[in-house]
Amino acid sequence: MKYYLGLDVGGTNLAAGVVTEDYEIVSRKSVPSGAGKSVVEIVQAMSDVSKEVLAEVGLTEADVDYWGIGMPSCVNPKTKLLVHANCFGWRNIPILDYLSRHTRLPIVLENDGRCATYGEILAGAGKDYINAIMLTLGTGVGGGIILNRKIYSGADHMGCELGHTKLIYNGRLCTCGQYGCMDAYCSARGLLDTALDELRETKEKNSQLWEVCNGELNSLTVRQIFDVWNQKDALAEKIVTQYVDHLAVGMSTLITIFRPEIIILGGGVSNAGDDFLWRVNERLKVRTFAGEEIGVPQVVRAKLGNDAGIIGAAMLGAKQPFIL
Amino acid sequence: MKYYLGLDVGGTNLAAGVVTEDYEIVSRKSVPSGAGKSVVEIVQAMSDVSKEVLAEVGLTEADVDYWGIGMPSCVNPKTKLLVHANCFGWRNIPILDYLSRHTRLPIVLENDGRCATYGEILAGAGKDYINAIMLTLGTGVGGGIILNRKIYSGADHMGCELGHTKLIYNGRLCTCGQYGCMDAYCSARGLLDTALDELRETKEKNSQLWEVCNGELNSLTVRQIFDVWNQKDALAEKIVTQYVDHLAVGMSTLITIFRPEIIILGGGVSNAGDDFLWRVNERLKVRTFAGEEIGVPQVVRAKLGNDAGIIGAAMLGAKQPFIL
Repeated sequence: MKYYLGLDVGGTNLAAGVVTEDYEIVSRKSVPSGAGKSVVEIVQAMSDVSKEVLAEVGLTEADVDYWGIGMPSCVNPKTKLLVHANCFGWRNIPILDYLSRHTRLPIVLENDGRCATYGEILAGAGKDYINAIMLTLGTGVGGGIILNRKIYSGADHMGCELGHTKLIYNGRLCTCGQYGCMDAYCSARGLLDTALDELRETKEKNSQLWEVCNGELNSLTVRQIFDVWNQKDALAEKIVTQYVDHLAVGMSTLITIFRPEIIILGGGVSNAGDDFLWRVNERLKVRTFAGEEIGVPQVVRAKLGNDAGIIGAAMLGAKQPFIL
Repeated sequence: MKYYLGLDVGGTNLAAGVVTEDYEIVSRKSVPSGAGKSVVEIVQAMSDVSKEVLAEVGLTEADVDYWGIGMPSCVNPKTKLLVHANCFGWRNIPILDYLSRHTRLPIVLENDGRCATYGEILAGAGKDYINAIMLTLGTGVGGGIILNRKIYSGADHMGCELGHTKLIYNGRLCTCGQYGCMDAYCSARGLLDTALDELRETKEKNSQLWEVCNGELNSLTVRQIFDVWNQKDALAEKIVTQYVDHLAVGMSTLITIFRPEIIILGGGVSNAGDDFLWRVNERLKVRTFAGEEIGVPQVVRAKLGNDAGIIGAAMLGAKQPFIL
């Protein structure tokens, strides 16, 4: 049996795993990613957790061919620098230099959203499809594009930052410094911002949303919004309807360009339940260019959860995963 | 010498040409496309003009291998129907059936914007580039995407309708039935609509724009707007600044996804002059996600004008032009 080592670096957790050639994770561990700590400390933790998952199944670095890593942003092949990692506040970091101090393995590093997408297309919700898009609705909006079962990552792997496609002209300031990005509306943070806008503007003070957070608007969570929505609260309905429309319009731009067979949703917001998913599908039918003539792709939930990022990272070097 | 037959079908003209293997047009003719006439009449004209350009250089259908045609929209390979051709008011037309009554040649039909893009990458402004995007700012906004010097057209060739990516959430009603598409702001019509909005709202009645159209706002042309702008008219400045910003934000979504090396502008608005092009480039630097770290593609004018569509259509069957 051949084994692969994958590490998924997120703003919240570092999740490492040992993966078989059948995409089964035989060993895994997740530790806090330590956002706010120094690059040296975070890279140390990345190395430690990766070695631990190998050791747990009696393996060492000598038993794998490379260290596959999914990270926010991507290494610019021209500058060799990690361009952006907003969750760590990093810009233009020589991440490969830091990482190579910890290993003799070749390092294969790719954007985390694209790794999760690749995992889902290999072994998850995209297993039976040729052309797919995945959107991860988490802290930010990430994602990936699959063309002919391979990852499309833009020229020099610098594209496909789907969360930073524009949704609302001159809209909310995004973490990227631009305005009105899909990320600013369709991420968990974006949903909370939409909720806060509504709560601050509304004159209806009888929404259950006020109760669940004890009037402390800044403590409101995505889970609470959907719980209250499931109880038919009118203000929560307005907020979720707005969120679903933002998401549908954002997706419609991607459909207009790519016409994928399927759109896979991952990340925290995608766990909001079947009613939410039904709403997204219905709204997308209304919002898609030439949907009647060409058809509208089905929107489904990711199947592998956090495993997708580990599997995708682990398989980055196994066969040529990129279309370009 | 090998010859190719290409026909570029637009809302205004049908332009046919005979093209050599070196992308030289040795015979060409353009006739009004007859929007408003029946499908039968328009297809007859398509056939006539194509046969005329062959005859002009002493050739017949027997001297070429196929009839390459660029048209608005695209034939859905599943239904075999031409999906949309808004300029003719067509939806789901069995165009190949109509066309095949006029020829024994194989018909190779592709979206007109993608044909023009392919022409520019083969022989025009994109000749030296690997990854490019072209936008035609004409009656509508069309365009094409070049990945690795091949056309990317979306799954089943149904994607890459770049004019219908979303620019302004719930913005102007677009010809496609959706709202806020790039087409509704960045086409010639979109520029005129922006101008009319400004002219109707402004209290400044001393703009030269009022004079050039003799107060008949609906007769205002794109050319007049840019002429007045070149004379430093304040209201024209506001209108052009707004247009350039719309265009830059629309392009920024495409850059975020594809990171092309170059963006080629074609269509009537692209002829507005060097100052206009400079403005577009400057604004794009401000509006592009991670432009400082990754760089911002240069925006240039198309080189081949209307020839691009003829050359691209003519070469559709010469070698595999599609990446998928």
